[in-house]
Amino acid sequence: MKIKFKTIAIAANSKNKKIVDIARQCCEVLSNQSLNILLSEKLVSLDKFKGSKVSTDLQISKKADLLIAIGGDGTMLSCSRRFGFLGLPLLGINLGNLGFLTDIAPEDITSSLMEVVNGNYLSDKRFFLQASLNKSKETNLALNEIVIHSGALAQLMEYEVSINDNFVYLQKADGLIINSPTGSTAYALSGGGPIIHPSVKAINLMPMFPHSLSTSPLLVDDASVIKIKMVNGKGNFKLSFDSHHSLTLKKGDYITVKKTESVLTLIHPQDNDFFSSCRNKLGWSSGFIKSH
Amino acid sequence: MKIKFKTIAIAANSKNKKIVDIARQCCEVLSNQSLNILLSEKLVSLDKFKGSKVSTDLQISKKADLLIAIGGDGTMLSCSRRFGFLGLPLLGINLGNLGFLTDIAPEDITSSLMEVVNGNYLSDKRFFLQASLNKSKETNLALNEIVIHSGALAQLMEYEVSINDNFVYLQKADGLIINSPTGSTAYALSGGGPIIHPSVKAINLMPMFPHSLSTSPLLVDDASVIKIKMVNGKGNFKLSFDSHHSLTLKKGDYITVKKTESVLTLIHPQDNDFFSSCRNKLGWSSGFIKSH
Amino acid sequence: MKIKFKTIAIAANSKNKKIVDIARQCCEVLSNQSLNILLSEKLVSLDKFKGSKVSTDLQISKKADLLIAIGGDGTMLSCSRRFGFLGLPLLGINLGNLGFLTDIAPEDITSSLMEVVNGNYLSDKRFFLQASLNKSKETNLALNEIVIHSGALAQLMEYEVSINDNFVYLQKADGLIINSPTGSTAYALSGGGPIIHPSVKAINLMPMFPHSLSTSPLLVDDASVIKIKMVNGKGNFKLSFDSHHSLTLKKGDYITVKKTESVLTLIHPQDNDFFSSCRNKLGWSSGFIKSH
Amino acid sequence: MKIKFKTIAIAANSKNKKIVDIARQCCEVLSNQSLNILLSEKLVSLDKFKGSKVSTDLQISKKADLLIAIGGDGTMLSCSRRFGFLGLPLLGINLGNLGFLTDIAPEDITSSLMEVVNGNYLSDKRFFLQASLNKSKETNLALNEIVIHSGALAQLMEYEVSINDNFVYLQKADGLIINSPTGSTAYALSGGGPIIHPSVKAINLMPMFPHSLSTSPLLVDDASVIKIKMVNGKGNFKLSFDSHHSLTLKKGDYITVKKTESVLTLIHPQDNDFFSSCRNKLGWSSGFIKSH
Repeated sequence: MKIKFKTIAIAANSKNKKIVDIARQCCEVLSNQSLNILLSEKLVSLDKFKGSKVSTDLQISKKADLLIAIGGDGTMLSCSRRFGFLGLPLLGINLGNLGFLTDIAPEDITSSLMEVVNGNYLSDKRFFLQASLNKSKETNLALNEIVIHSGALAQLMEYEVSINDNFVYLQKADGLIINSPTGSTAYALSGGGPIIHPSVKAINLMPMFPHSLSTSPLLVDDASVIKIKMVNGKGNFKLSFDSHHSLTLKKGDYITVKKTESVLTLIHPQDNDFFSSCRNKLGWSSGFIKSH
Repeated sequence: MKIKFKTIAIAANSKNKKIVDIARQCCEVLSNQSLNILLSEKLVSLDKFKGSKVSTDLQISKKADLLIAIGGDGTMLSCSRRFGFLGLPLLGINLGNLGFLTDIAPEDITSSLMEVVNGNYLSDKRFFLQASLNKSKETNLALNEIVIHSGALAQLMEYEVSINDNFVYLQKADGLIINSPTGSTAYALSGGGPIIHPSVKAINLMPMFPHSLSTSPLLVDDASVIKIKMVNGKGNFKLSFDSHHSLTLKKGDYITVKKTESVLTLIHPQDNDFFSSCRNKLGWSSGFIKSH
Repeated sequence: MKIKFKTIAIAANSKNKKIVDIARQCCEVLSNQSLNILLSEKLVSLDKFKGSKVSTDLQISKKADLLIAIGGDGTMLSCSRRFGFLGLPLLGINLGNLGFLTDIAPEDITSSLMEVVNGNYLSDKRFFLQASLNKSKETNLALNEIVIHSGALAQLMEYEVSINDNFVYLQKADGLIINSPTGSTAYALSGGGPIIHPSVKAINLMPMFPHSLSTSPLLVDDASVIKIKMVNGKGNFKLSFDSHHSLTLKKGDYITVKKTESVLTLIHPQDNDFFSSCRNKLGWSSGFIKSH
Repeated sequence: MKIKFKTIAIAANSKNKKIVDIARQCCEVLSNQSLNILLSEKLVSLDKFKGSKVSTDLQISKKADLLIAIGGDGTMLSCSRRFGFLGLPLLGINLGNLGFLTDIAPEDITSSLMEVVNGNYLSDKRFFLQASLNKSKETNLALNEIVIHSGALAQLMEYEVSINDNFVYLQKADGLIINSPTGSTAYALSGGGPIIHPSVKAINLMPMFPHSLSTSPLLVDDASVIKIKMVNGKGNFKLSFDSHHSLTLKKGDYITVKKTESVLTLIHPQDNDFFSSCRNKLGWSSGFIKSH
């Protein structure tokens, strides 16, 4: 049932020594298994890795059947947009800090990789959010969240939200976060949003520093078409994707947000478990002392 | 496509004058349409209504193809468990205060009822939550929420939650709320839970006065089997269904919560809209003034 | 006991027609009482008002014993820094929207002004927050709040807070709000801060979009000296005063925040009441419907 | 300046072995310093401690100038009402779990006690809250919080709050918490209340599961007289003190809450620090990972 991976690409967002060392280790483990190894251009120059072939993004997306991303969640977000969106499954090796998207710790690389290439892995699917501006057909992608912001601290923007052409609310706030379940453990969590298990088919909407106290996070079906019209506000609004890149909006513009048809396939070691990540990363086990 | 209702039952939880007046008005409107009208026993004695037939709950659930519930959300909850769970569609007429489940205001009864019996209506489906205790096969129903509580104010209970046999967390709190999307605008909202559109297939878990600050509402797929084991705590815990009836639990007991296969069908006038209810009932339009 | 005002200045932040009309009305009411009226330069040119004398800010602060500010809370904030900080009592006439600092509605101008000039008024004192950068003796003022921000959306800054030289915490967040009781009904409220009655001698600290869930608003004595050291973060941080003007900070900088010795005197009509403002402006009377 | 303690009492709420062992250790340390030691009756019977004299509560409050309480925050709360309220300074030795009121860990007993009896200690003052029912002059005490509750889960009570005879709000909620700064790290924290430094002269009011979203914690001056009138609700309300004992209220009753004139003196080792307790007990240093 599960794909046996044959051509595995390795990518990262930087070439610092730690990443290069991990990449070399991956190459060694994989080359011993007679697998084809493609090495992202951005990783090379410093070094030649045993049995690997330096490749462009295009070559990787055409030939590889698994991409190993080395870094933090930022690297995973970037690789998910560059490769994952095109259908290439992703496996994340974290670098030091734990992440929700990167499952393999540096000390487990060899055993975990061996398991995965032997077909002992779990996979899950994550949708992307895409946004288009006004009538444009061009879209931008986010795996975690799309944020519309007034562009300045404590500066209100006024916007109108509709879902599937039904008016939802006219709101004043510093900004609006629209996040996927994947994004529920990222920025939205800092703003008080709920944790959404990856299997829940929902999109969360949540104002930032809203003008009214009568607001709660709002969860809608992931098949919803969300339209936000910029009604009022000073200066230029910002439309931001995974806090990575952003567009400028002006009064009267509207943004249409929905999930993509293409999904990201995440590959995990067999022992992966969303709740275990939550316990580790959110400190669910720590407590404070009540005097009762 | 839509069912044309032929036998319509009318129920309420009380016989105060206002309710009896509304029930009489409903009878008049419906009897002019040559429909069969069944009147719940609990509504009669005071009065005889034109063209209606006094009926037991059993007769109603066997013969009626629509139930009109007159009252507030409490009446709807009760009717949804007594009739809706057995497959009878429900239409709610609210009494004075607006409700999330009752859509028709007293002043719109005639026109709204006419529309509905003429087949101009919307319907949506809501799942129930059911809970069973230990190995018992007996289950109790809730449309809004199931609450496990320590049984006293500021008294901690310790419990272990697992989802589909995966351990989630060991938590200390005064209680735990498990709510459906329908319940997201009821008690859970008071506790800071997210608003969940009825079409989202999710269940929300949320501790009450948790011992740890590192907790957020947690949304899981509505197909999840949620098991809560009572690990520690003084005295007797309470397991409560829609704040309506409750069971007593003790240390070592476990509760299994999942959605029911049977769903509630809610009938709404054509102009019904979840977001419009939110705006009306949650004061989404009111705001406070920030000095910027 | 109460000062009988003799020289009253009138100021605003704009010369739109509505403001000019209100200013003219104030002049008429006051000139009938044989009071000296000073008109801020910024209000004139358009118009000559009966019995008033066009004055500079300096003349106003030297000669006036009451300043009437016409506008919203923004105007009051500006006048409080320009005049109130120097000891001149302020009375606010709001323009359309209600504010927490402006008590007199346009329709009550005549009666309220008469009362105030006849000595029938309440007064309360509000402290300012002041911040200095590193070893500089220059300070900036805020009546509501001082905000330190990473300068970009979803970009963490890391900072260390100490109070009276006791280490409090090392925190990662998008920003940090430090607000006075006066500011507790402004921006801090949008971020989930508590409402603090003006008579409480406290300063509130509250991270914005914190990296950790284990954070709550923290209230310290208003005599506290709060030091924030910018430990880490990309790019330039922003230090903002009442969302009005801001400075740029860099890694390694520290900010010292404390209350000023000088206080603002706010003049209110006799029927003024903080809680009544809260009820009006925060919708304390509105409610949502729980099904129980 | 600082009192040199001469007669030191030792109390606890139980006689389990751990507590008795710690009590014995305290006796040894203190008797070597030629101090008078009074042992609470509740601690004895099991054992005779070197140099100590078994004493009643009355004897302790008359003769001792310091009380050492062994246990958790619950023991401290009880001792603060029994002894602290009468003016006897308290020093807490915690038993296993850390507490906000108990500063000395079992492993530091000898050195910490020596320091304290040598006059090297810090002391701080905490006010109690007292409540009286209707016109009664009898009052009950709480160090942490007074809670008024509907008496059942998800059952609304309606109450009217006034402060110094000014109407504040009419609210519907499951309950109302009124807490001191001392209580801000106890039950109120679980409900989302702010952390209030012990030196802040304020009382916090906060509804539990309020019917309206437009509610925030409200801080008022600690000199406030807070009156709560029970306007509506089913059955019997509960008025609870430090979650320790409670009274029953009925519709129409009113409660008057204010701080006591008598204050609790807490004795701490020199290195005590409120913020350090917060860091240890609230996990201020732990964080979750945001992907940016």
